[in-house]
Amino acid sequence: MAIEQLDSSTENPFAFDIATASPARLRGIFRSGAYRGTTANMANGFTQGNLAIIPECHALAFARFCQRNPKPCPIVGISDTGDPTLRTLGEDIDIRTDVPSYNIYRDGKFTESVVEITDFWREDSVAFILGCSFSFEEALMQARVPMRHMEIDRVVPMYKTSIELQPAGPFRGTMVVSMRPMSMEDAIRASAVTARYPHTHGMPVHIGDPATIGITDLDDPDWGEPTEFRDGEIPVFWACGVTPQNVVHAAGIPVVVTHTPGSMLITDIPSAIS
Amino acid sequence: MAIEQLDSSTENPFAFDIATASPARLRGIFRSGAYRGTTANMANGFTQGNLAIIPECHALAFARFCQRNPKPCPIVGISDTGDPTLRTLGEDIDIRTDVPSYNIYRDGKFTESVVEITDFWREDSVAFILGCSFSFEEALMQARVPMRHMEIDRVVPMYKTSIELQPAGPFRGTMVVSMRPMSMEDAIRASAVTARYPHTHGMPVHIGDPATIGITDLDDPDWGEPTEFRDGEIPVFWACGVTPQNVVHAAGIPVVVTHTPGSMLITDIPSAIS
Repeated sequence: MAIEQLDSSTENPFAFDIATASPARLRGIFRSGAYRGTTANMANGFTQGNLAIIPECHALAFARFCQRNPKPCPIVGISDTGDPTLRTLGEDIDIRTDVPSYNIYRDGKFTESVVEITDFWREDSVAFILGCSFSFEEALMQARVPMRHMEIDRVVPMYKTSIELQPAGPFRGTMVVSMRPMSMEDAIRASAVTARYPHTHGMPVHIGDPATIGITDLDDPDWGEPTEFRDGEIPVFWACGVTPQNVVHAAGIPVVVTHTPGSMLITDIPSAIS
Repeated sequence: MAIEQLDSSTENPFAFDIATASPARLRGIFRSGAYRGTTANMANGFTQGNLAIIPECHALAFARFCQRNPKPCPIVGISDTGDPTLRTLGEDIDIRTDVPSYNIYRDGKFTESVVEITDFWREDSVAFILGCSFSFEEALMQARVPMRHMEIDRVVPMYKTSIELQPAGPFRGTMVVSMRPMSMEDAIRASAVTARYPHTHGMPVHIGDPATIGITDLDDPDWGEPTEFRDGEIPVFWACGVTPQNVVHAAGIPVVVTHTPGSMLITDIPSAIS
């Protein structure tokens, strides 16, 4: 499955500083339909989340799946059935409009990207918000751990692995990981830093040997773009939010709505809260 | 509501060291019905959990409630519907027999304690395992933080508070906390230590002034027994596992099964895993 790339309008069109803008201000802009690009580098210090909208008949099984696989699927919020607000994540959130761009999947296949999903939200819809890597990358950068894919302006490379997930109902499969090259010294520090962020994938799942987790060629990622290694650097792997998306698409649910990769829900929850 | 006290057979009847015994060995003894007392000080280093068995029709709402109130209700595991095993918590667990003692509640009222619940487990039963304070008390004792209630051989005092919980479906109410007296120096250290244990209630919810969280008299706990303060000590409050029990009993579910307070499920999960 090819990743659905970000909308091409990823250049920052804003006349204000998106890094320090409030989550509510940014959500208001997304709600108006004026922007459908990435939320990277926006509202620094606030938790951003992946979105998966599941019919209620599968929601308990999906909650179990996430609870059993907290590294790839850290639950940040679950909506009430049919209620598009997410009171615990922000006062004014309407999940039908407040994400810059949504992907629609029918029978597990991507069919379209849309800027609001009012027509797709149903009486039995349940929105799951799962932690994403933006928050931990922010923490790593503050700790001066290099983010190579950003330095060379690429999408982080992501790989299928042989790491089996704990199944629940129709949800099962193997973990997808993202990879960042760094020195072993940085890898140790990065492990300590990300351990403090269990809601954004937590500690690495592996450091060093790709073959150990079933990856054969680092230069051929399943999603994203290859990255570059400098002398003495080793690959560090974290559980990735593509994991639950993959698993949901394979679960045989007729219509699933997710965020468009990179276009997250920006919540009012500070990233550092535990 | 008075707390259902532990069975009187709380003295250790075992001919081996319960602190270093394996979870599987202890569960085997509980399974045989030979012991119905507390699991305190057993299988040190392994996560113990509270039990609440909920019919599937309320299970998604209860999962939401726990996700929204992680300090009092940290989810350690959720069974498949009608499946009494808990594969993610241990290979051989049968939740119908492997807890020393169970409490049965009908229409929110305690009716009986039993040593196994084979007759109560139904096709639509879902078992929730929630973190309990035993694991964090172990970590605090290793950090030399005093556990006064243990020193004077009493049950930790627990109090209703004015701290509103985030509601979900029929589950709503206020938080119950446990309290431990200590110096401010120890309270700061205890905060840092327990922050590392989000699955066993995490950081304190308050330090210092009971009135701030709606407690009028520390000498008159709602559950457990009053404790003793020494010179210069202040009260430190943690979210307590009685919270979800209270909330479940008030939710209007005809039959609810829980562990008998103090008699937990001992899992194979190391306490220190994050």
